[in-house]
Amino acid sequence: MRAKDDEKVCRVHRAALKLFNEQGFHGASMGKIAKEAGVSPATLYLYYENKDDMIRKVYLQENARMAEAVLGKMSGESFRQRLRSIFMAYYHYILESPQSFRFMEQYLNCPCLSGNCVKAMQDSFAELFKLLRAGKRDGLLRNVSDDMLFAFLFFPVGKVAKATLTKAMSPTADDLEDMFDMSWSAVRA
Amino acid sequence: MRAKDDEKVCRVHRAALKLFNEQGFHGASMGKIAKEAGVSPATLYLYYENKDDMIRKVYLQENARMAEAVLGKMSGESFRQRLRSIFMAYYHYILESPQSFRFMEQYLNCPCLSGNCVKAMQDSFAELFKLLRAGKRDGLLRNVSDDMLFAFLFFPVGKVAKATLTKAMSPTADDLEDMFDMSWSAVRA
Repeated sequence: MRAKDDEKVCRVHRAALKLFNEQGFHGASMGKIAKEAGVSPATLYLYYENKDDMIRKVYLQENARMAEAVLGKMSGESFRQRLRSIFMAYYHYILESPQSFRFMEQYLNCPCLSGNCVKAMQDSFAELFKLLRAGKRDGLLRNVSDDMLFAFLFFPVGKVAKATLTKAMSPTADDLEDMFDMSWSAVRA
Repeated sequence: MRAKDDEKVCRVHRAALKLFNEQGFHGASMGKIAKEAGVSPATLYLYYENKDDMIRKVYLQENARMAEAVLGKMSGESFRQRLRSIFMAYYHYILESPQSFRFMEQYLNCPCLSGNCVKAMQDSFAELFKLLRAGKRDGLLRNVSDDMLFAFLFFPVGKVAKATLTKAMSPTADDLEDMFDMSWSAVRA
């Protein structure tokens, strides 16, 4: 019974991701999501209070999944190598999980929602924040806010990954190395 | 008669920006936009073939306005100073024209639309592309694609300006100088 429930929740989650991405938070109704998942609307309300609750729970799950995938790839001897491994893992995560990335972007771009995510981000990416703190303490990174470091470490690569998904760009392995070197030049002390 | 028409087009344009931002391209119907602008739906169809045509025309106008505002502020003796003037003008444009910026972001984030904008961007920002070409030719900039240069010159500052609008960040003048220095460190040869 439990396994069957888990499978159902998974299906609803996938349907929600798909429809939120295709039709936006506005366009995708609970009814449409239930239909896409092949469950009754009443079933949806067993798991989620309402659409807002569903959006929040899908976000929390995707955020945790991304953090695990990205931080799980952290490796390397030097500080620069460790940052590079996270940078590359983030790029590849976006290419491999476009639905997840698009959903996260939509969530973070929505002024009414983005405020809710700070705590969840801090928790799931705690290891990364620790690394950045250590980098600043040891004089390896510029002494600027974490937000500014993020803006140069992850926004450009996010944009380029997105352009790769839409086939607007097709970066080679060398381009990716150039890009990380540009990020590193921006954030290093 | 002409002046009255111009005023009406302006009102429709403003109403379209507002509703597209508040309700997304999906949520904002031609009927709602007509109502917001205080004109009849039939009037809208005098200026625009349909909603897609309206979205495209609003984009072209906002793109031209942004290019004029940003490139109009280009000044400085050195190459670095000229880039800095454009960088700061872009930041201030976003703070002063949040509706315009949000609309442009939504447009560029929509996979079905972003392909249409390359030519318009290249035309309206021709002066900037010329500057980047000269920078590469003279060995002042890294020899990477314009897309990569853009990713480090304008995406981070765009994100920070957006965070400023939502009050998630409140960068000081020194923070902005740091941020430009980070962009410059990323793109310089």
